Order: sequence, then C-alpha cells, then structure tokens
Amino acid sequence: MALLGAALSHAEIPIFLLSLAALLGLARLFGEVAKMFRQPAVLGEILAGIVLGPTVLGTFAPEWFAALFPKGGAVETGLSVIMTLSVIFFLLVAGMEVDLSMAWRSGRTSFIVSITGIIIPFASGFALAFAVPEFMHIPAGIDPLVFALFFGTALSITALPVISKILMDLNLFRTDIGVIIVAAAIVNDLVGWLLFAVICSMIGIGGRDPADIGRTIAGTLVFVGVMLTVGRALLHRLLPWLQANISRRSGVMGFAMVGALLCAALTEWIGIHAIFGSFIFGVALGDSRHLKEKIRASFDQFISSVFAPLFFAGLGLKVNFVQNLDVALVLAVLAVATVGKIVGCGYGAVLGGVQRRAALAVGFGMNARGAMEIILGALALQAGVIEEKLFVALVIMALLTSMISGTCMQKLLARKRELNFAELLSANLFKLHLAGRTREEVIAELSELAAVRIKVSAAVITASVLEREAVVPTGIGNRVAVPHARMEGLTKSYVVVGMSESGVDFDAPDGEAARIVFLVLTPEKDTAAHLQILAGIAKAANEASVADDLSHATNYSEVVSALRNVEESH
Amino acid sequence: MALLGAALSHAEIPIFLLSLAALLGLARLFGEVAKMFRQPAVLGEILAGIVLGPTVLGTFAPEWFAALFPKGGAVETGLSVIMTLSVIFFLLVAGMEVDLSMAWRSGRTSFIVSITGIIIPFASGFALAFAVPEFMHIPAGIDPLVFALFFGTALSITALPVISKILMDLNLFRTDIGVIIVAAAIVNDLVGWLLFAVICSMIGIGGRDPADIGRTIAGTLVFVGVMLTVGRALLHRLLPWLQANISRRSGVMGFAMVGALLCAALTEWIGIHAIFGSFIFGVALGDSRHLKEKIRASFDQFISSVFAPLFFAGLGLKVNFVQNLDVALVLAVLAVATVGKIVGCGYGAVLGGVQRRAALAVGFGMNARGAMEIILGALALQAGVIEEKLFVALVIMALLTSMISGTCMQKLLARKRELNFAELLSANLFKLHLAGRTREEVIAELSELAAVRIKVSAAVITASVLEREAVVPTGIGNRVAVPHARMEGLTKSYVVVGMSESGVDFDAPDGEAARIVFLVLTPEKDTAAHLQILAGIAKAANEASVADDLSHATNYSEVVSALRNVEESH
Repeated sequence: MALLGAALSHAEIPIFLLSLAALLGLARLFGEVAKMFRQPAVLGEILAGIVLGPTVLGTFAPEWFAALFPKGGAVETGLSVIMTLSVIFFLLVAGMEVDLSMAWRSGRTSFIVSITGIIIPFASGFALAFAVPEFMHIPAGIDPLVFALFFGTALSITALPVISKILMDLNLFRTDIGVIIVAAAIVNDLVGWLLFAVICSMIGIGGRDPADIGRTIAGTLVFVGVMLTVGRALLHRLLPWLQANISRRSGVMGFAMVGALLCAALTEWIGIHAIFGSFIFGVALGDSRHLKEKIRASFDQFISSVFAPLFFAGLGLKVNFVQNLDVALVLAVLAVATVGKIVGCGYGAVLGGVQRRAALAVGFGMNARGAMEIILGALALQAGVIEEKLFVALVIMALLTSMISGTCMQKLLARKRELNFAELLSANLFKLHLAGRTREEVIAELSELAAVRIKVSAAVITASVLEREAVVPTGIGNRVAVPHARMEGLTKSYVVVGMSESGVDFDAPDGEAARIVFLVLTPEKDTAAHLQILAGIAKAANEASVADDLSHATNYSEVVSALRNVEESH
Repeated sequence: MALLGAALSHAEIPIFLLSLAALLGLARLFGEVAKMFRQPAVLGEILAGIVLGPTVLGTFAPEWFAALFPKGGAVETGLSVIMTLSVIFFLLVAGMEVDLSMAWRSGRTSFIVSITGIIIPFASGFALAFAVPEFMHIPAGIDPLVFALFFGTALSITALPVISKILMDLNLFRTDIGVIIVAAAIVNDLVGWLLFAVICSMIGIGGRDPADIGRTIAGTLVFVGVMLTVGRALLHRLLPWLQANISRRSGVMGFAMVGALLCAALTEWIGIHAIFGSFIFGVALGDSRHLKEKIRASFDQFISSVFAPLFFAGLGLKVNFVQNLDVALVLAVLAVATVGKIVGCGYGAVLGGVQRRAALAVGFGMNARGAMEIILGALALQAGVIEEKLFVALVIMALLTSMISGTCMQKLLARKRELNFAELLSANLFKLHLAGRTREEVIAELSELAAVRIKVSAAVITASVLEREAVVPTGIGNRVAVPHARMEGLTKSYVVVGMSESGVDFDAPDGEAARIVFLVLTPEKDTAAHLQILAGIAKAANEASVADDLSHATNYSEVVSALRNVEESH
C-alpha cells in the first residue's frame, strides 16, 4: 500500500519536509527584508536559494547541503514537482494581471513604444549573441541562430508585475505616462512569450523532431487565438455563474487552478512549455471584468507568498552563482539590455509625442525585467539553450534593472512617493501609558518624546500644537485624536503615538475621549505630506475594526499591526 | 541540468498536470454538489476519487485509468508528494480551529462529556476488534492488541470542523449546548490524536525497533507539552510582530506553513506521523487571540478548496470501494460507533445535568466523524494496521455519521436553520426589465411573477403588499426597495426580484429611486423568517460595494453573485 508519500521512504519524509521548510522560510524572510529596503521580493528569494544552495551552504558545509537536499532520490523529485507547479501558478497570476482591453484602448503612443521597445532590444540582443557566441558561452551543439533568437527575446521581454508595483508606488499608475508604460508592457510581454514559444518549438524542448516545428507553431497560434477569443468569451459568461453558485471565494481559485493545469498540459503536449498555457489562461480569465478584484488579490497574495518564494529560492539551489559569475559577461548583458530597452522605448515614446525627459522615464520604466526574465532564463537553461554563466548574467541583469528602475523614474519625473503614515511610526516615538489627563498635558508629554529626535525644544512644539488645537479641536472620533503642527526647520515628518487608558478629551464629534493620540509634526512647506498623513490616520480611525484593535493594543507591535490592517484592505 | 520537473520526463509532464487537474476539478465539482444538498464537501470529494479511481474508471475503462494515473513512475510520486503535503496542511488548519482556552473555560459538563465520550466508544471499539478480529479483517502479522487499540481510538475521535459547521448552521454555536459540544469535541480530538500517536509508536510505523516505543512516547509528550506551553506563548508574542512587519496578510500564512512543516518533520523524526506535528502546531498557533480572524479564514478557505479536495479524492484513487465493501462489517462498525458515541456522550451530558432530549442531541452532535476519521483510517491502512475492507467501512461510517448528525440534532432540539434570503432566490422569480414606473405598477408586476408559484392571485398579493407599503414606505436606500407582506396560506417564504433601469420611487431615506426591488412574501405565522429575510436584504443593501454591483448587474447570475459577496465578508 502506498497511500501517502509512496515514493518518500520514512527516512526521506522528515528531510523532504525540512528542505521545503528551509526553502520557504528563508525565501520568505529574505523576501520581506528586500521589501523593507523597497526592493523586489524576488531579489531576497533568489538570495535565499543562493545561501541554501551550492554557492554558500554547498561550499562551506557541503555535508549539510548534501543532507538537506539529497540528489537523485524522491526528495529531489518532490522538490522539483513542487517547483514545476509553483512556476505554472506564478504565470497564471502574471497572466491575470494582463489587461488586454486596456492595451487595446490605450492608443497610438503605447503601441509605438511596445513595438520599438521589442524591436530594438531584440535586434541588439540578437546581434550581440550572433557576433560573439563564444563570449556568451553558447552550449556545444546549439544552433547559433537559435541561440541568438533566444537572447534577442530575452532582452525584449519586460516584467509587468514589477512595473505596475513601481508605478503604484510613485502614484503614476493612472497618469498618461503610467498608462503608456503599462499598456506597452502588456503587449511586450505577450509578444515576448509568443516569441519564446516559437523558439521552444525550434529547439524541440522535449527532444522532438525539429520537423514538427511547423505543427507546434500552428498549434500555439490556434491555442492563443482560441483562448483569447472564444475561451475569453466563455470565461466571461462562466465567471458570474461560478461566483454566484460556488460556495466560497476560493472556489473560484480552485477553478482557476484547474483551468491553468489543463491549459498547461495542453501546451506542453503541443510542444511548448507548460507555463505558456497557464499564462494565456490567466490572460483570458483576468480580462473578464467579472473576476472580482478581491478574488484576484487574495489569489495573488497566496501565490506570491507561497509558490513564488519556493520557485525562486529553488533556482538558487541548482546553480553556483559564484563559480558561474563572469563579470565581463554580466556587464555586457546589463549594458546591452539597458541601452537597448531605454533607447527602444524612449525613442518610441518621443515618436509618439512624449517629451524627452518623460520619454527617458518610460524607457527606464520598461527596463525592469524582474521575475519574468529569470523564469525565461531558467527555462532556457533547462532546455540546454544557454549555459549556467549566461543564466547567472541574466538573473543579475533582471534584478539590477528592477532595482534601479523605480529610482530613475522618480528622479526623472521628480515624483514623490505617496507618504504612508505607518512608515513614520517608530518604537522610540511611542508611549504606552500617557500620564496626562488633559489635552495640554498629553501634548506636552508627546512633544517631549519628539524633542529628543528633532532638536526643537519640547516647549516650542507644545506651543505650536496647542495654537493649532485652539483653532480646531483634533479629536476625530472612534477614540482617536490627531493634534498636529507644521513647523519651521523640520526636514521630514514625524508621528508620535501615545495611549491613554483613562482617555483624554479632544472634543471629538462623537463625544468620546481619545484612547490613542497621534502627534503629527510636518515641515512647514510640505503641505502634501501634512495632508497625506492626516488623511491616512483619519482613514484608519474611521474603520471600526481598526479603531477597536487600536484601543485594545497593549504594545507597540499591536498598534502597528492594527494600522497595517487598513493598508491591506485597499 | 534538472531545473524544473527533474523527475518528470517530457512525456510525463502533461499526464501529471492532467491527472492533477482531473482530481482537483472533479473533487471541487462534487464537493460543491454535496454542499448544495447540505452535505459535507468531503463526501463529494471522496466520491470524485472513487469515480476516477479503480472503483469506477479503473473497472469500466481500465486503459484510461492506467493512462491518467500511471503506476510506479514519477507521476505517481508527484501525486503522492502532493497528497502528503495536503494532509499536513489540512491538519494545520484543523488544529487552528481547536480553541484550548475555550475547552479550559467551559466547565464541568463538557469535561464529563469528553471523558465518557472517549471511554465508552473506545471500550466498545476495543471490545469488538479484540473479540472478532477475523471479522474485522485483521491483517496477518498485526498484534491483536494493537489492532484493538487502534479501532478503539478510531471510534473515540470526532470531527471538530464538521461539528462546528453543523452548530453554526443550526445557530447553536453560542448556546450552552453548543459550547458543551465544541469544548468536548476539542478535548476528544486532542486525546484521540495523542492515543493515535502512541499506537503509531507501538507499531513502529517506519519499521523501527519496538524497543524505541518508550523513547517515542516520551518524545511525543515532550513535544506536545513544550508546544502547548512555551511554543504557544512564543507564538502569542511573535504573531503581532509578524502581522505588524510582514507586508501582507498571506505572509502570516507562509509563516504558518513553515512552522507546520518543521513540526511535521520533527514528529516524523520522533517516530509518530508528520501530521501530528502540524496539528499540534496549528493548535498552538490558532489559540493566540492575536491571530487575526481574517487570516485564519482565508487560509482555511485556501486549504479547504485546494489541498483538502486533492487529498480526499486521492484516497479514492488507491482503494476499490466496491470490491472492498463488506456490508456486514460496515453495519457493525456503524452500529458500534454510533451507539458507543451516543451512549457515551449522552450519558456524560446527563451526568453533567443536561436534560435527556438535549443530552441525546449532544450525543448525535459528537457522533459526526467526518474528515478526521477518514485521515486516521488512511494512515492506519498505510501503516498496515488495517486492511482495505475495514478502511472502506470506516470511510462509510465517517460519512454517514456526518450526514445524519445535523438532521438528528435539528429534530431533537426543534431548531430551525437560520434563513438566508439568498437561498430563496430563483431565476423564475426574477425580472430583468421591470416595465412599471410607479411603486404600484412594479409591485403588481412582481406579484404576477409570484402568483405563478404560490397559487394566490396576483391581485391579493398586490393588495397585501400595498397595504403594508401605505404604513411604511419600503425604500431602504442605496437604490434598493423591499416591499413585503406576511400572507395567510403560505407554507414557505418567497423572494421575487425585479430590476428597473429608470428607477422607481419607494420613498427611500436617501431620496434615490430603487433600481432593484425585492418583493418578500412570508407565511403569516413565521415572524422569524420575515425578520431574517428583511434583515438580510438590508444588510446587503447597506454595503456600498454590493449595492453598486447590484445596480450594475445585467442578469440573474450577476445579482446572485453580488449578494453572495455579503455572505462571504462575514
């Protein structure tokens, strides 16, 4: 009888579970750290794999590495099955973010950008790989034409999820520039993956006869054509019915996963990679306005916090990133990729009538490669189209372009990130038990805390805040008060938080005493920061559940935890 | 290079994906159908496996079965790895539902019920298995004592998730009876799994030396002791920090999964089954009041709509339920299990001061075995403690006891299920384009629709509704109106829905015309139904997003889909 873990012996089960826990745990941890530094999570996730893989653990404690990730047994099989499923579901979610109708509506400029943004990077990548294949470590037996086609494709794709995230951070998503970039990236991604599908069929991944190429390409085109027309229309009709009749939100997730698996099986059978099928299914599904945003978001969250970390950390397990680091190659790939993309997209934007500085920002935006490039590289490596050295160069290029993209756009467009008051909280600016009973006493207490950090005397702060308080009382209801002042000489904003057990009267409209007091101090000139912080706190206080959590919080972490809940419900 | 799908050849990948899609798809489908008939989803999920497995597909189309689920290769390995992970995560969630502090607080009666509810079923099961081991198909080479111990344990556990669901359906969850049952079930489950862990160590799952039994039992007790004291306290401190600092809700899920995997690896290494570790981790984690209800709920949803269906359907793949059906054995198991549990728990409840009829209801409530029994049986089958015939009998007993439990309690306690107005909606009682422009015209239109179904003339309905309308106008705001009447001669309640593009004035407090009109007709005597339906509609209309979806709905499915969203946000 082999009911559970048929292939895993009893000695292997703990090892398998442990290796999975190590991969997921470290990837999540490093991913969170990367996010704290405003870097893409995939950076941390790949680093986790590098630490656990041959690069670090395998070099410094080879026997531990061999024990945790034994080769050739059921543990390796189990991990690789999970990686396969992870990347399939990751591409499903990536596909769901592709909004075809948006690309369709977005007009001439983004169309031009997407075209030049594919052609120029493709041409430069193709030229480089065709000119110096040895420098690029072309594997023995690979047709230089196929190799160059792959590298051209690799440089022409972009990473929609990374780009969307950057645009949202910079509050650019709904602007003209934002729409141009997103729409162009959508077209870019679709064409890029189609090109890759064609290359897959040419190299006969699966070891099939190259004579089948025609059949595979035809099958691919039929699949994409049918899915994006008939399939899309059917899903559009099916979704409201599913959402009406399936008992839970996640029931739709189950349906999406089944569809993705079926399409993945189909494309693998056609002769291109399974992930292409789940990507296209995601596009067809996500395009329906009937797919509820909540369902999409919670699915996305689950995939990006379980499957994506496992996949990207798993990549680090397979390749030694130090041994295969060819600095000259990395620099060449980085330079050609960045120049090609920025020139291509920037030129397209100028042609489309965007002014030069903004056009450059479009180029930097489209240059982010992120997770997509890494997946493409992993598939090419697996298929034997590239060697490990080029894979490492592609990974580094993908991570670096994603990391600089946001900063460059911010500089070029002189945008500020939207201020989120929760980021300003700090354990040093927090007082759990306010001693004061009156508004004046409490403001003085919090001002003293602030004075330690901002080099303005507590008396001055108190006076400014009370002056403001005299004009309008700052109790905003739900037991929250936000005394505040705009102060000369500050270079950044501060939020000091205090809690009062007995409550302090701040003349709130609901008549309740404030249990939690946010003292907000902003630079005199920065009206935007001032308004954003006050609006953020008001929004949080306004949600009954958050206000309730806040007034029951017994330490700093619980306060932050309660406030985080608002952000999430966006 | 073996980056992805190392073990899966290119011919195997489509088969693996297809088999996974078939299992998940059919299990979800049958699970939903089961729920429509108010039966536990696990019933449908196991049926899906029976259909895809040797029982049906393997019997009627053996070559298809062999092609879809090939034996001995990487496809089988992949599926069994996924089943192993599924059951580990399922037990994690089951553990999270165990509220130790509730059991602790609940007092004498539930304590007595849990003790007698374990001892009497255990004793009857033990006696039966020890008396007639051949009738029970004891496997060759298994010690009759171990066999009897296992069967006693199997009859003494219960299924907390099924029981909680039934109690909520009957609106009993917060009543005295409800608390007694849940608290007793919690203790019951904990003790049951501990017993099973001990038996695991006795039979040396993993083929270990029986001399290690002492060490394994000691290790188990230390693990449980440490996790439920120190571990629980640590998690209680860690959770607010995680929820404050990890960027997304599902980040906490990732953490929970890592913890469950680590504990699973540990218990497997100690010598008891991996699932015991994840169950105890779930108990320690779920007990913290810091674990946000939303996180728990969304995790639960994901597990129960992806992992649980895969696991239970997978069980059906392994066993031929027809060939191994021994009717006499099924009846004996069912009888001993039910009598033992009802006598045990009912007697305990009477001892604790519950009156007889309610005590019987407690017994029937605790008799639901559900998924837990099935998992226990699967593990025993895998370990060779039981034969397939007894496994099939345990599965059938688990499903039947779960199915009758709710109905019996409802009858005994004369409870009504809480009425959910969404269940009363029907495509026949729906009009997409109301022609009327006035309240009177619209009510007459909807009354005609109703008259087809309820055998009261449209004129009588219209008159009753208008009479009520004259007393209080029924526009409730957000473009929703609920004209209603309580009518003589009705045996059940009806909700007729109509949509008006131009809007109809129903004197709503916000002054807006109604775009969607619910005509509610209830039996004259059934005040509860009347209030519940009106309250349900008002609640739905009150949520801005639902009201918005409603007024944009263009067909019946979209209306139901919009209304479903309210229920989910509980």
